[in-house]
Amino acid sequence: MKEKVKIGYIGLGRRGSSVMETSIRYMDDVEVVAICDTYLPAMEKGKNLLLEMGKPEPIMTTDYKEILAMEEIDAVFIMIGWSGRVEMAIESMKAGKYTAIEVGCAYNIGQCYDLIRTHEETGVPVMMLENSCYSRKDMLTLNLVKSGILGEIVHCDGGYHHYLPGVDLFTDLEDEYKHYRLTDYINRNCEQYPTHDLGPISKLLNINRGNRMLTLSSFASKSRGLKEYAKTHIGEDSEYAKIDYKQGDIITTIITCANGETIHLCLDTTLPRAFYSRNLNVRGTKGMFTEDTGILYLEGMEESKESNLDETYEKYEHPLHKEYQSLGTQGGHGGNDYLVARAFIESVKRGTNTPIDPYDTAMLLAIAPLSEASIAQGGAPVSVPDFTNGKWMNREPVVKGKYCLNEICIDDSYSIY
Amino acid sequence: MKEKVKIGYIGLGRRGSSVMETSIRYMDDVEVVAICDTYLPAMEKGKNLLLEMGKPEPIMTTDYKEILAMEEIDAVFIMIGWSGRVEMAIESMKAGKYTAIEVGCAYNIGQCYDLIRTHEETGVPVMMLENSCYSRKDMLTLNLVKSGILGEIVHCDGGYHHYLPGVDLFTDLEDEYKHYRLTDYINRNCEQYPTHDLGPISKLLNINRGNRMLTLSSFASKSRGLKEYAKTHIGEDSEYAKIDYKQGDIITTIITCANGETIHLCLDTTLPRAFYSRNLNVRGTKGMFTEDTGILYLEGMEESKESNLDETYEKYEHPLHKEYQSLGTQGGHGGNDYLVARAFIESVKRGTNTPIDPYDTAMLLAIAPLSEASIAQGGAPVSVPDFTNGKWMNREPVVKGKYCLNEICIDDSYSIY
Repeated sequence: MKEKVKIGYIGLGRRGSSVMETSIRYMDDVEVVAICDTYLPAMEKGKNLLLEMGKPEPIMTTDYKEILAMEEIDAVFIMIGWSGRVEMAIESMKAGKYTAIEVGCAYNIGQCYDLIRTHEETGVPVMMLENSCYSRKDMLTLNLVKSGILGEIVHCDGGYHHYLPGVDLFTDLEDEYKHYRLTDYINRNCEQYPTHDLGPISKLLNINRGNRMLTLSSFASKSRGLKEYAKTHIGEDSEYAKIDYKQGDIITTIITCANGETIHLCLDTTLPRAFYSRNLNVRGTKGMFTEDTGILYLEGMEESKESNLDETYEKYEHPLHKEYQSLGTQGGHGGNDYLVARAFIESVKRGTNTPIDPYDTAMLLAIAPLSEASIAQGGAPVSVPDFTNGKWMNREPVVKGKYCLNEICIDDSYSIY
Repeated sequence: MKEKVKIGYIGLGRRGSSVMETSIRYMDDVEVVAICDTYLPAMEKGKNLLLEMGKPEPIMTTDYKEILAMEEIDAVFIMIGWSGRVEMAIESMKAGKYTAIEVGCAYNIGQCYDLIRTHEETGVPVMMLENSCYSRKDMLTLNLVKSGILGEIVHCDGGYHHYLPGVDLFTDLEDEYKHYRLTDYINRNCEQYPTHDLGPISKLLNINRGNRMLTLSSFASKSRGLKEYAKTHIGEDSEYAKIDYKQGDIITTIITCANGETIHLCLDTTLPRAFYSRNLNVRGTKGMFTEDTGILYLEGMEESKESNLDETYEKYEHPLHKEYQSLGTQGGHGGNDYLVARAFIESVKRGTNTPIDPYDTAMLLAIAPLSEASIAQGGAPVSVPDFTNGKWMNREPVVKGKYCLNEICIDDSYSIY
């Protein structure tokens, strides 16, 4: 096992640097050897962050290929915008680097196949840093499913309900640094951001491990929110008020699975709403758990609209979160960022596969282009590729009643499953 | 205007008699002349109910045709099970009787066309007694939409979330009287019960009045809940534990509309759940309203998870419900049953069309067979017929900013819109 993991960090804009901070500040066994960004103020910010944390000054470059060429680097974090990210991940894997990528989507299915082919040829893992898989409530939900008290799981709901125009899409418009997602919202119409909801759900349903997604159907409402926002908040005459945004305001996606479950997702980012939600809801033959209401309901209980979340945590808190809390460690998104980065780093140290593995990553990346194809065909179901090429039938399930079950499960608790 | 409306009542099992009670007890201008049921204990119960309410003893018959033949009868309530209901409604209209039918579904689209053809040939209205259209919260929602504060409406969610096995499907199993829905759950797989959620939504979206439904796609999860319930609650060896129920536990349906809105429905009746819900949620460019949380959110407000329902009622209570409350009148389902029956009776008295009119009724009846067709094709979108034959483009919208707008709107408040 490696004592120390040396990493290269590519893409320091916005979330890139915050994830770096969270994942580095509390880890003595990680060294950021080099950082890369083509936008110099972002790179400068990244360097300063490292210096403030008392870390050594990193090598800085605007050419990511230099980072991939550095022999001493074990692993690379790729946190750039969606465009070019998958290609870069493939190059990184070919260079033999454990590769972590920020959440997001591919633009076509070919990219996903390329990623898998590269993994299978090189043996190098790639992991989407889906931090919601590590959230306290999502891990609680996983533990509830594992415990068996919900019975056989039949259906899950999830969503990304987050009103973005004022916090993301239309911020820093004068800046080169402006949010790359805006370009996608102008030009595309699809489930662009499924991973925060589908990541945890796919683990609950053993996707790629005894189960797989068969079909995906997506539906888009009309697009009104962004134009309305631009008119009201930027100005009737602004260029943004004149754009006909292709992205529908509400995207509904239904996925059917080989084992008969249905998954309902909603992307809801351009209409005003009361609160952020990922709307996780799990339905089984013996009970249900709903994140937003905090209600665990088991058959035979009195009907109730009152949260019993405290009790549920008491009985079913996931061991990994118990340990996290005992460490007193902090970091972005309630520990999610720390834990997901830690799981990746532990995999690098041990030379194992990653808990969100290349097949999971390809599947999550594929949702956007599949959804785009379905919407363009009026909601016709499209087939979800089997990136495992049949291996899903024999891979060890995530959910099997024990705590740590992943085939790549490692001895300590930093593996998610 | 008629002083008194004379009605015939067909089907007194379960809900039939409760609706009759609610709709008769508080109405001095209504007389039940005759009742009909092939199941004699139900008919007896109906008669006793009328006598207890101090009403005259009705004529009783097991042959509904006798009721349709009675010249003095103005209107007929048809509250029998799903099978045969639409055919009977058609006969009733042909006999010149204003016809009210219980909520439910057709078995094929031909029935819906037949209903419309009969209406167009005879000029006689038919009204589905969709009581949720008259619920206090749904009418509040309608009033919010009419007020314009939510902006342009883009998407609606709704559902029928009600765990039925112990309250409906598996009750009175030894009885002839047992719930007819069980047969449908054994044999069919579809959105069998969409009207409580879709009824109010279709009014908000001006369906058949400036808008129409274009496509419908439905998806079924596996079917586990009913068998599991039968095993646990009826017995491992019971005949009900051996049935392979065709009805999926969770049915998700997405409808797209001519004006670009999407509608998401969920039928959720066979898995344990924490509380009953119709999950109405309306999304507009300026705000949202969610029934379950009781939150009205308008752009610019602070994010919040706290209900502001009391304030919202204070400002936006629907005038019809204000009037209803001032009457102090009671009845099933918080006034819904009373109000929907009253709207029908007022239409009969005035000789006008009904607020839930033949086109609305045909559309609501059509959802189940459309959903069945889509599920059978793996969620392929199916076209929703335009029962108005193009008239929807020129019919007066429900939502236009004034209180009472329906083309069949009547002077007093008993019209829904």
